[in-house]
Amino acid sequence: MTVLIVHAHPEPRSFCAALKERALGFFTERGQEVLLSDLYAMRFDPVAKGEDFPTRRDPDYLVYALEQRHAFETGALASDIRTEIDKVLKAELLILSFPLWWFSVPAILKGWFDRVFLSGPFYGGRRFYDRGGLKGKRATCLITTGSRAHMLDEGGIHGPLTLMLRHLLQGTLAYVGFTVLPPFVAWHVPYIDEAARREYLEALDRYLENLDQLSPLPVPSLADFDALMRPLAGRRAGT
Amino acid sequence: MTVLIVHAHPEPRSFCAALKERALGFFTERGQEVLLSDLYAMRFDPVAKGEDFPTRRDPDYLVYALEQRHAFETGALASDIRTEIDKVLKAELLILSFPLWWFSVPAILKGWFDRVFLSGPFYGGRRFYDRGGLKGKRATCLITTGSRAHMLDEGGIHGPLTLMLRHLLQGTLAYVGFTVLPPFVAWHVPYIDEAARREYLEALDRYLENLDQLSPLPVPSLADFDALMRPLAGRRAGT
Repeated sequence: MTVLIVHAHPEPRSFCAALKERALGFFTERGQEVLLSDLYAMRFDPVAKGEDFPTRRDPDYLVYALEQRHAFETGALASDIRTEIDKVLKAELLILSFPLWWFSVPAILKGWFDRVFLSGPFYGGRRFYDRGGLKGKRATCLITTGSRAHMLDEGGIHGPLTLMLRHLLQGTLAYVGFTVLPPFVAWHVPYIDEAARREYLEALDRYLENLDQLSPLPVPSLADFDALMRPLAGRRAGT
Repeated sequence: MTVLIVHAHPEPRSFCAALKERALGFFTERGQEVLLSDLYAMRFDPVAKGEDFPTRRDPDYLVYALEQRHAFETGALASDIRTEIDKVLKAELLILSFPLWWFSVPAILKGWFDRVFLSGPFYGGRRFYDRGGLKGKRATCLITTGSRAHMLDEGGIHGPLTLMLRHLLQGTLAYVGFTVLPPFVAWHVPYIDEAARREYLEALDRYLENLDQLSPLPVPSLADFDALMRPLAGRRAGT
């Protein structure tokens, strides 16, 4: 198995980085190939823009998704994007490692999706969710946060974490076809002691050992919708 | 009234930019002050990083929120951040203008929150939601998308747009205290004709004329939670 870890924390000595290192070691020790995109270390540019396409399909009017598709087909993508796309296409498991900022990913990681998740091979037309281009691959998130667990749970002040992350788990990862596993979350991180941090690192080992036993996020099925994406009568009963 | 429009689209001739221009004209014609942050035109840097703080509280270990608070208190914030903060603090109405990318904002706008929404004056400790630092101000979004309306509605393939945008509407805007109005959305934009676009521009005028009549997003109240943010028994009945 090839694993791609995409890490997005500005402090190399953060606990978030320690989780990333632990995951990296876990797979390496088991003889698996681990690819790493440490976005801050790479100084990854997260801003999707016309300059991403050295030879434009339409130099006068930028439609980003159309330029992506054109550049991919003609082999003319910016090299930093092409490298990331190749990693994603090669890996069977994608791990996103990040601190929860504004109930989402840091901008440097948001822009990794904006620039790398490509119209064409990743999605397009009726190719999304259970027909997404990356179907068969799995994805999960390692998340650090200052919140306590009960604040991001059913009945908690923010509601469930998976609902706050719906744009990421469903709208991004599941959209392009990934089987999305429930995230690993380290809670209340700035306030916990070394022993609690060690426990999280050990819990991460167990989490990674048991990936196959985790229940993936439920995903809409395109078979339940017509050509205009209207629900088919009767097909959604019970959901 | 002072209005701040934050716009995040890479194509200056996009329909998204036309909506932004229309909103700008609407308020200007009514004699109101409009501040504009056109993030692509400004080449705004969305990456939160140690270099945002010329004099660090802790040069060896970056905790972004603590450095933000320290830099604000000592007047040592990076000048591009300080300028944006002053605009937000001055405006009574914040309008975000953006295309829906991965069911969220483009990275350049995500990073505007990461860098500008400051620990200290905007939020902190028990100062969030109905006790957030920006309480009394209003915020809304002007959104363009290729999706059709029924795809982002109850029972639609992606579910309601407001649920996909929960991280933004509740987790970011309402979190810092904004009263959040239901977004103005232009659907199916790449596929509609000039007449349909003109109708959207006119609909935007009516939307802006009637802002006072819109029902804001419901927001959790801190009075319903104890000091550790656990729900107070009985206070949440009926919600």
